[in-house]
Amino acid sequence: MTVSKPFSFSVLQTDGRARHGLVRTARGDIRTPAFMPVGTAATVKALYADQVREAGADIILGNTYHLMLRPGAERVAALGGLHEFMRWPRPILTDSGGFQVMSLAKLRKLSEEGVAFQSHIDGSRHMLTPERSIAVQGLLGSDIQMVFDECTPWPCEEDAAEVSMDLSLRWAERSKAAFAAQAGLGRALFGIVQGSVYPRLREVSARGLVDMGFEGYAVGGLAVGEGQERMLATLDATVPMLPQDRPRYLMGVGTPEDIVLSVLRGIDMFDCVMPTRSGRHGQAFTRFGRINLRNARHAEDPRPLDPESACPAASQYSRAYLHHLFRCGEYLGPMLLSWANVWYYQDLMAGLRAAIAEGRLEAHCAALREAWARGDRVD
Amino acid sequence: MTVSKPFSFSVLQTDGRARHGLVRTARGDIRTPAFMPVGTAATVKALYADQVREAGADIILGNTYHLMLRPGAERVAALGGLHEFMRWPRPILTDSGGFQVMSLAKLRKLSEEGVAFQSHIDGSRHMLTPERSIAVQGLLGSDIQMVFDECTPWPCEEDAAEVSMDLSLRWAERSKAAFAAQAGLGRALFGIVQGSVYPRLREVSARGLVDMGFEGYAVGGLAVGEGQERMLATLDATVPMLPQDRPRYLMGVGTPEDIVLSVLRGIDMFDCVMPTRSGRHGQAFTRFGRINLRNARHAEDPRPLDPESACPAASQYSRAYLHHLFRCGEYLGPMLLSWANVWYYQDLMAGLRAAIAEGRLEAHCAALREAWARGDRVD
Ligand SMILES: [Zn+2]
Ligand SMILES: [Zn+2]
Repeated sequence: MTVSKPFSFSVLQTDGRARHGLVRTARGDIRTPAFMPVGTAATVKALYADQVREAGADIILGNTYHLMLRPGAERVAALGGLHEFMRWPRPILTDSGGFQVMSLAKLRKLSEEGVAFQSHIDGSRHMLTPERSIAVQGLLGSDIQMVFDECTPWPCEEDAAEVSMDLSLRWAERSKAAFAAQAGLGRALFGIVQGSVYPRLREVSARGLVDMGFEGYAVGGLAVGEGQERMLATLDATVPMLPQDRPRYLMGVGTPEDIVLSVLRGIDMFDCVMPTRSGRHGQAFTRFGRINLRNARHAEDPRPLDPESACPAASQYSRAYLHHLFRCGEYLGPMLLSWANVWYYQDLMAGLRAAIAEGRLEAHCAALREAWARGDRVD
Repeated sequence: MTVSKPFSFSVLQTDGRARHGLVRTARGDIRTPAFMPVGTAATVKALYADQVREAGADIILGNTYHLMLRPGAERVAALGGLHEFMRWPRPILTDSGGFQVMSLAKLRKLSEEGVAFQSHIDGSRHMLTPERSIAVQGLLGSDIQMVFDECTPWPCEEDAAEVSMDLSLRWAERSKAAFAAQAGLGRALFGIVQGSVYPRLREVSARGLVDMGFEGYAVGGLAVGEGQERMLATLDATVPMLPQDRPRYLMGVGTPEDIVLSVLRGIDMFDCVMPTRSGRHGQAFTRFGRINLRNARHAEDPRPLDPESACPAASQYSRAYLHHLFRCGEYLGPMLLSWANVWYYQDLMAGLRAAIAEGRLEAHCAALREAWARGDRVD
């Protein structure tokens, strides 16, 4: 039996509350702050895995809910695991399925045991419990697994948020117990702090999870419609309660602006569908803000998105061409913009890491914001 | 003013009626027999231009009808021409728009002058004439341009086919006159033999075109539903009337089987949407015949499409993964299969060229057919 390298995290430098660190896993290192492109159904949409890596990504995210339904966790395992299946040999983090089962599945029935539901694809019946979620994540071969939790919806009264958070704590304990079956494989299990926007609940949740002990801690239940101000206030209240020596992951965030503001508050890891989803819809993220390529003003613009980008999609194709591709509904439009956006997000993270390492994060963030606001329209 | 290298063609080897040759253009050489992937709207669908080149393509085809409507020929010219626009620096052949205006446009009105029509996209009114077609192809910067012709529909009585063929001859003459404006740029104009399945008409058409004199000759009006037997009979009757020292292009063909049979009859150039269209629909072309990846029998098959292919899409991804991507409607499915298919077609042509060069075409074709028929199903 092979004993894999254990999972570890070290903070290399700090700048204010922000940290630059390194997560080590059996499948490779993750430089933090890190952004994880989302590979929902075993593919980061419209990209080859090589492109995701070349853009600078150290880790991607897979969705347990989608993968357990299609192609199925046992099938992925029989085919050598998710890394082999999708040809991404580096670290993969999987969510628990808890969020998506509540947002996508039909006829959900929540109980202490877990969530019974019908597939949104074919109506087949399934049960997701802490034990099954961890088993599925294990079958996928996930390097960083998440406890099965209930993502408290927004808005939510404090009473209801507490009931939900308490359930998530009990599920976290069961998730941890189930994860013991994967000991020795160098994999990690992260807890997820819930409690909506209520500092008291966030504290109970954080303390409960820290008492159980996890390799990392996520902040869940944010970016669900509460708005930036409440999100940041919740981070301000929650992050200080998390251990300094464990990675902190803000789930489902977000815009470049939100990522910067969260890094400033000590968050180490992020994931979001935004770069790929926006790319498929014609929106580019650049150093000079967002550019909607569907807009007619780009129809004759020979300029690339960003001549200084190392991403071919951003530096080698004219906006006129990108505009044309989206007008025609050509595959290459989403392919190029998803590529440019994933690359931009990775450049953003690399810039933040360098700025933290060199103690100039504040000035760096001010410069980022200034460029976003200035834009690059030539009038 | 730059004087471009002139267009030239030389037959390097023959094997029976089949020829291996070299077309030289200002933008690069084209090894024949050649297959031209179709880049309808300034993109070979679901592929990066680099992938098309790496697959082995020396030349691609662009569609005048589509490009004149979107983004517009004058706009492409203002942006540096089609090569620059779509980032394909090598030769491009453009059709004349004659075929697609009759199959796609609305409210077509055919006259001696040309075809008045409304765009199928936005209803805007346009007129395509021999002069306008050549002007559009010139604005696009096409290396090999086609005369504006009427593609005789199928089925078609001999009387009607003759009227149509005669019109195409007059249009060919006007196309040639219009093309004189592009003299000195190293570009070529090809004539198109029409005449449906009637040998007498094909002869009149071929003689008329050869008398006018073109840099190459296409056989048009085939692969429109007449069936393989009539197509081959028409080639048998038509090809011998074309000059030995000019390339021969069979428009819109076809399946690997049809390409092989046409190469055996002396055809040098082909184009077809089949590799990319089939790829988008889940069908792969391989050395062992066609494989429909949507079929459930592939769901757990760890084998790649062809472990010996130099194409990453064919050799590095399991059929189970490809099946999964198509079931989920993921972009990567069409991306990978279009890549594998375009690569397969180029491998097919390279194999035919080598076999002709070495005088073993008959045995090579027999081996191709045997492998296609055998398949590679493991039962
Ligand atoms: Zn998001
Ligand atoms: Zn075709």
